[in-house]
Amino acid sequence: MTDDSFHLFDTTLRDGAQREGVNLTVADKLAIAKLLDGFGVGFIEGGWPGSNPKDTEFFARARDELRLEHALLTAFGSTRRAGGRAADDPMVAALLDSGAPVVTLVAKSDVRHVELALRTTREENLEMVRDTVAHLRAAGRRVFVDCEHFFDGYRHDPGYAAEVVRAAAEAGADVVVLCDTNGGMLPADVSAIVGEVRAATGARLGMHAQDDSGCAVANTLAAVDAGATHVQCTANGYGERVGNANLFAVAAALELKHGRRVLPEGLLREATRVSHAIAEVVNIAPATHQPYVGVSAFAHKAGLHASAIKVDPDLYQHIDPAAVGNDMRMLVSDMAGRASVELKARELGFDLSADRALLGRIVDRVKELEARGHSFEAADASLELLIRAELDGSAERPFEVESWRVIAESRQGTAQVAEATVKLYVKDERIVATGEGNGPVHALDKALRLALGSFFPELGRVELIDYKVRLLEGTSGTGAVTRVLLTSSDSQGEWTTVGVDENVIEASWQALEQSVAYGLLRTGRG
Amino acid sequence: MTDDSFHLFDTTLRDGAQREGVNLTVADKLAIAKLLDGFGVGFIEGGWPGSNPKDTEFFARARDELRLEHALLTAFGSTRRAGGRAADDPMVAALLDSGAPVVTLVAKSDVRHVELALRTTREENLEMVRDTVAHLRAAGRRVFVDCEHFFDGYRHDPGYAAEVVRAAAEAGADVVVLCDTNGGMLPADVSAIVGEVRAATGARLGMHAQDDSGCAVANTLAAVDAGATHVQCTANGYGERVGNANLFAVAAALELKHGRRVLPEGLLREATRVSHAIAEVVNIAPATHQPYVGVSAFAHKAGLHASAIKVDPDLYQHIDPAAVGNDMRMLVSDMAGRASVELKARELGFDLSADRALLGRIVDRVKELEARGHSFEAADASLELLIRAELDGSAERPFEVESWRVIAESRQGTAQVAEATVKLYVKDERIVATGEGNGPVHALDKALRLALGSFFPELGRVELIDYKVRLLEGTSGTGAVTRVLLTSSDSQGEWTTVGVDENVIEASWQALEQSVAYGLLRTGRG
Repeated sequence: MTDDSFHLFDTTLRDGAQREGVNLTVADKLAIAKLLDGFGVGFIEGGWPGSNPKDTEFFARARDELRLEHALLTAFGSTRRAGGRAADDPMVAALLDSGAPVVTLVAKSDVRHVELALRTTREENLEMVRDTVAHLRAAGRRVFVDCEHFFDGYRHDPGYAAEVVRAAAEAGADVVVLCDTNGGMLPADVSAIVGEVRAATGARLGMHAQDDSGCAVANTLAAVDAGATHVQCTANGYGERVGNANLFAVAAALELKHGRRVLPEGLLREATRVSHAIAEVVNIAPATHQPYVGVSAFAHKAGLHASAIKVDPDLYQHIDPAAVGNDMRMLVSDMAGRASVELKARELGFDLSADRALLGRIVDRVKELEARGHSFEAADASLELLIRAELDGSAERPFEVESWRVIAESRQGTAQVAEATVKLYVKDERIVATGEGNGPVHALDKALRLALGSFFPELGRVELIDYKVRLLEGTSGTGAVTRVLLTSSDSQGEWTTVGVDENVIEASWQALEQSVAYGLLRTGRG
Repeated sequence: MTDDSFHLFDTTLRDGAQREGVNLTVADKLAIAKLLDGFGVGFIEGGWPGSNPKDTEFFARARDELRLEHALLTAFGSTRRAGGRAADDPMVAALLDSGAPVVTLVAKSDVRHVELALRTTREENLEMVRDTVAHLRAAGRRVFVDCEHFFDGYRHDPGYAAEVVRAAAEAGADVVVLCDTNGGMLPADVSAIVGEVRAATGARLGMHAQDDSGCAVANTLAAVDAGATHVQCTANGYGERVGNANLFAVAAALELKHGRRVLPEGLLREATRVSHAIAEVVNIAPATHQPYVGVSAFAHKAGLHASAIKVDPDLYQHIDPAAVGNDMRMLVSDMAGRASVELKARELGFDLSADRALLGRIVDRVKELEARGHSFEAADASLELLIRAELDGSAERPFEVESWRVIAESRQGTAQVAEATVKLYVKDERIVATGEGNGPVHALDKALRLALGSFFPELGRVELIDYKVRLLEGTSGTGAVTRVLLTSSDSQGEWTTVGVDENVIEASWQALEQSVAYGLLRTGRG
């Protein structure tokens, strides 16, 4: 880890897992911990041992299987029960049994929660903090204390909230973390309160921000401005309700904007890769519009700026995308001209600057298709196929389609069925294949894969993952032109193709055929 | 609109449309403008007339079709060209021709952009601002000036950036808007710079924040703290790259946390509905984890604090979710669902408050269908048909469908064709009709109209005007569940119906059948 003067503390595995719909296996948690360690965070909160079998198992397996290079594993748990002793509390014992060298204890600091949720007294709550911290310290653990609902509590009764901070620090907690558990704070107030608590207690302070106001990153940075030296975040901002402060946005801002080293040298450049890899493990599509690490984070659309961007990209981006492992992308749209097509081609590995005539042909073709409703900005793969076709029009295509037909019907009281027949050639062989599906495009997809499967077994790894249809401008009703965007993926990544036609099935077919052709191109078989 | 002392300015239709993958039709833009007006924003920036035919058409149609209750329509454009005169500039003339009472002019305020992108001098840029503002003011327009790249420019050369602000204000701009165009600012710096510029220029200032640091909402609020009285936002934070400051998060924070009235009384409660409806028009799934208005924004994982939440929910949420039209989701949320169904029924002329059992049945049915992917928020007509069916299940339906079948095919070198056959009963008469169309849904529509035409000639006035298909969350590929939203119109207005099925044609058929049934209802024949 980096030195102890500043803590980048990750709680994806504990608080992040509270996100609606997320359900991590122990293997998922181990994989995420490795990724977080590879990003260089100082602490990884693994879960609450003793609260459920999965978290207990995680710590047991982590001892054997997890070799952390940068991070210290941290166990989360609560202060002992009211009226008991920490030494006799089985939940506290589970924290020690976990073997984690660091423990984060959650404590109440809002007197209303002490009385309504814990149903105990102000003094007993303080005693629970002192007793539990001291017990864990005596057993050789490093202890951080999370003051739950701190900011709401401080507004209600600042004296008591500060007393909890003092009790924790005096009992031996290294850091007392002020939690905006309900997520309602705004940065100016966070900054003021952190400053006051620091002055009143002298404790080392941390910040834990939820994103309910959309200000979790800003609140975290405001706390650091006011003297906090420990920040709790989650990968991609996963967390309960709206989520938590996003680890990647906080780390990037601290390193690139505050000039503060919070990760080992060079590891901020792993941000984009780690963000996407964790999203894959959690099984949530990576948020395309996430700050710093989203695929759209450095994507420029306006044709207006394209020529100026070529002159000096730094005038149009807040940081160098390479600093977080991301890339500038130029989106080709009807607003764009030659400069953006040229940049896009360069991104795809083709230098068109030498051949103005070729560039002109491609731009004309793009504009013509865009005018008919193709949306290349959303369909990179279709654009690449178009550019490749213009670059090498004579290249043999992997298959040629003769015809397709779909029949769909529905009868009162029986299931609907769709059936598709595709006729095509691979080299000189003619193939006729029929597929059934629960809809016409599904049936066509099945038929096409059946037809091509024996020639191109690698298509088995290609999966359709998104399908969008819309009606285009200037037309009306079901007789209007439709645009289909179809996204496919293989183990390496995903790509989107576009089809446009008055017939939604024909438009789908165009996108489907391109999607398969592009999938073959990726495996070197196109 | 609310009084002029504070401006909530929306630029979804201009800057929001820069979001990757978004491509709005003129009809989309008109629909979004109506929704934004219903939310009560003061200004709606509609686009850049003269820069592309679509935006020009939007302003032309808006003059005839858009009746705004709260907002003023605003046209966006740039200062005149270097070396010319505003009075001779065709782009400036297009702003006047748009008929919009307010114009937002974008001006360069970073001297590097003046020299590298505009390729002109510091003095000529100031002259372009003065000349264009004065010209538009003389023509009776209200003018706001967006200082593009202001913060980067201010850091590079504060004197020049402030000079641009002064030039705009002195020439007659009501508000000079400081734009964090690259989105890299953090709140503490925004606050300091806005304060300095205000002191140095005395101009009325606005804020336009991009979200590249994940701080757009916080930056907007920081600018207001420092004296800005005009904020530019987009619905759901749509915008280029990472996006813009989210209108709903900014409005909610200003009203509920700053205690500042920025919307007409009572309209903040429309936030959730408007957010989701705009997402449907844009055809992007509403962001589940969006602050305030996301479906997860007040979703508590059941169990953990359940009993305490029941005692006092306010201890576990930063605001009352009803204030933004949202719901806490851990508790059985019957009440909210009931309230909106009850309200809708009252709108239709039925008082359900006396019959709790009937109301309960309707709410259950709505929930069941919503869980399967129906989106009644965007499909009022389907909801009305559902309520009417429950209210009077015995009422005779105008027609009963026995079956439908579609055949679509495509053969190399010939036109594709789609043919549909519909079999149905009107009273006791069985009708079989076949229609051809350029797509399966078009063919079904033709067949259905042919079958019904002689009984219901008034269907001739009903026209399908929009058709949207979306794959639903949590499913995959072409075998996944699709939702179709279909909008029809007659001379009196328009209505939207929804269909959901694995088969896109079946889903389309459901929406089509309802659309026709609702059309007949409107003429009193349903």
